[in-house]
Amino acid sequence: MENLEEKTITEETLFKGRIIELKLAEVALPNGKTAKRELIHHSGAVAIIPVTADHRLILVEQFRKPLEKTIIEIPAGKIEPGEDHALTARRELEEETGFASGELEYVTAFYTSPGFADELLHIYLAKDLYHPKERRTLDEDEFINVLTVSLDEAKQLMENQLIVDAKTIYAIQYLEMSLLKAQLEDN
Amino acid sequence: MENLEEKTITEETLFKGRIIELKLAEVALPNGKTAKRELIHHSGAVAIIPVTADHRLILVEQFRKPLEKTIIEIPAGKIEPGEDHALTARRELEEETGFASGELEYVTAFYTSPGFADELLHIYLAKDLYHPKERRTLDEDEFINVLTVSLDEAKQLMENQLIVDAKTIYAIQYLEMSLLKAQLEDN
Repeated sequence: MENLEEKTITEETLFKGRIIELKLAEVALPNGKTAKRELIHHSGAVAIIPVTADHRLILVEQFRKPLEKTIIEIPAGKIEPGEDHALTARRELEEETGFASGELEYVTAFYTSPGFADELLHIYLAKDLYHPKERRTLDEDEFINVLTVSLDEAKQLMENQLIVDAKTIYAIQYLEMSLLKAQLEDN
Repeated sequence: MENLEEKTITEETLFKGRIIELKLAEVALPNGKTAKRELIHHSGAVAIIPVTADHRLILVEQFRKPLEKTIIEIPAGKIEPGEDHALTARRELEEETGFASGELEYVTAFYTSPGFADELLHIYLAKDLYHPKERRTLDEDEFINVLTVSLDEAKQLMENQLIVDAKTIYAIQYLEMSLLKAQLEDN
């Protein structure tokens, strides 16, 4: 296979925020020519697929400023520096939904938008949900409604354009596939 | 349901590039307090799940500067201003893989990272693949290897961390689910 690497010639940090950093790089292409690359650095996040004993999903409704609209998603949050992902998952699940999980299982991780950003999203399945005695509180700039929906209701929310993001659409497909597999085993 | 909207108080454009724009907004929260939001604007993209008659996937290997590594993905590309998504899909499929599709079907669309970016990715399924007489050429800063893999091989590439991005992991799950559904119907 051809070597496809793009070597950095120069790199400049244009912005360093609370969530993202923006860098501009000049790179050497495999054919020796140069090109500019716009790069977003993000320290990574965790999302949780919280499934109840009767196969319902716990979702959160939240205003997303980049989209200028309120959408419905699986719970998720940014990994704090040095924090273990499984801990982030437990913390965000509790903060956003009020549920704790007796059974947390790693599902997968994916880069959300590798063309311009390095955000890596780790996904966990949370089962055996219960309400802990003391509820953690949300970050002071977070405002959230919690919903519990069946798989069919979740698919209806997709139809209605209220579920519109990659991780939640992945989660719905994941749950649907688990149920299909169980059905095939029963056959 | 509570109103969760965050109204813009001020907004400033910090960077306007070829792919992304960075804005910084100050918003009024539902409780009247204020917060800062870091916002990336992206004009949207299209990804294609190209499936051969024997259920194999056409994938592209490409260096992704934000990740500093070469990864394997379904073909995808940015929507040009005013361009119809289905046209973007046909163009990118041909440019990146050399294949044209006799049967292009809309699958879904999702925001890749709604916490900080408005990038919307439209996904198409491409069947009835063939090599057109004249091949379109890649953009001059694109370098790509093309692979054709079975579903099991694609899952192995995930295991080996060569397939690591949201759209491609979604595509593999989509293909797996189509095959499971076909199997259930046969039973």
